[in-house]
Amino acid sequence: MAHIQLPVVPELGREFPGIVGPMTFRPETAAPINELVNVLLRGPSTLTRGERELIATHVSWRNDCFFCQTIHGAVAAAQLGNDEQLVHHVKTDWETAEISPKLKTLLNIAGKVQQGGKHVTAEDVAAAREEGATDLEIHDTVLIAATFCMANRYVDGLGTWAPEDPAIYRERAAGIVLHGYAAVTEAATTMVQR
Amino acid sequence: MAHIQLPVVPELGREFPGIVGPMTFRPETAAPINELVNVLLRGPSTLTRGERELIATHVSWRNDCFFCQTIHGAVAAAQLGNDEQLVHHVKTDWETAEISPKLKTLLNIAGKVQQGGKHVTAEDVAAAREEGATDLEIHDTVLIAATFCMANRYVDGLGTWAPEDPAIYRERAAGIVLHGYAAVTEAATTMVQR
Repeated sequence: MAHIQLPVVPELGREFPGIVGPMTFRPETAAPINELVNVLLRGPSTLTRGERELIATHVSWRNDCFFCQTIHGAVAAAQLGNDEQLVHHVKTDWETAEISPKLKTLLNIAGKVQQGGKHVTAEDVAAAREEGATDLEIHDTVLIAATFCMANRYVDGLGTWAPEDPAIYRERAAGIVLHGYAAVTEAATTMVQR
Repeated sequence: MAHIQLPVVPELGREFPGIVGPMTFRPETAAPINELVNVLLRGPSTLTRGERELIATHVSWRNDCFFCQTIHGAVAAAQLGNDEQLVHHVKTDWETAEISPKLKTLLNIAGKVQQGGKHVTAEDVAAAREEGATDLEIHDTVLIAATFCMANRYVDGLGTWAPEDPAIYRERAAGIVLHGYAAVTEAATTMVQR
């Protein structure tokens, strides 16, 4: 059970897992969080959706947030030809993963942001630029990493629960790929209000 | 200079300080961040605006983010009878500060969230409830702390600059108290686009 009483889903007999529980509890804050995540992970960008989800997944893994790393890992896989092996590799050891040199420099920056903003050095940024990263890509990498440092703390700071079955995450990921974060949460909020 | 090229303010001859620089660079992500902060720090709540700004200030101090702890400290002071001494006390040593027992239990939770979501225990939450904290107050405390773990990393991860003169923060704080976070950033974005 979470640290606070969250709205119950009739079908589940309990609250939605992960961030969705508190989001159905406080739709006023859920809306801007979902908008932010939609822009960063799904909006127009020269980084693919798969690449951006990998950054979110790696940061969530670093923060040891089971729900976030599993759902965003599932979304990443869905957008990378269902390559769950690659996602696992990037989560735990991106340096040896089969990804572009540019994405590696961005994952390096994201990992520094997870430790704290001041860990990012001019050299980290220069290395990304050397591999062709634009200022917007560097900006979005820093903000994706920072945003998941928020989401991970929100999910675990309230003691939310998370299912273990990977199939549940794959199914939810399919909905997110199709409809986006805001729409999926709005649907969940309707379900608890019935 | 920041790690990326941010829009220059003609009057300053350089970019806006702190989070405002990257926010004028990326208005699409600035809008939901400001909306989130407006709801959490200025929206309807049983916690006063001053109390909520103290939570934001304490977390930013813990993350060693000079810009955020100084601007939110100035906003907190403006909303607490200009008591800058109290703000300083809460930042560095809230346990002995002259604040309510309830706010102390919430600052304890916020400090745990800053370390990582899993640091928050059922005992921390029970202690807050014992002092009369509601589920919504506990939720918002966790999310304010998490949100500033994002903002602090955004500000420092991009290597933004921060003025040292406290008078600059007091003046900006007065604008925020009057108009809110979104309006102040929107005005700044107009200034760099002239």
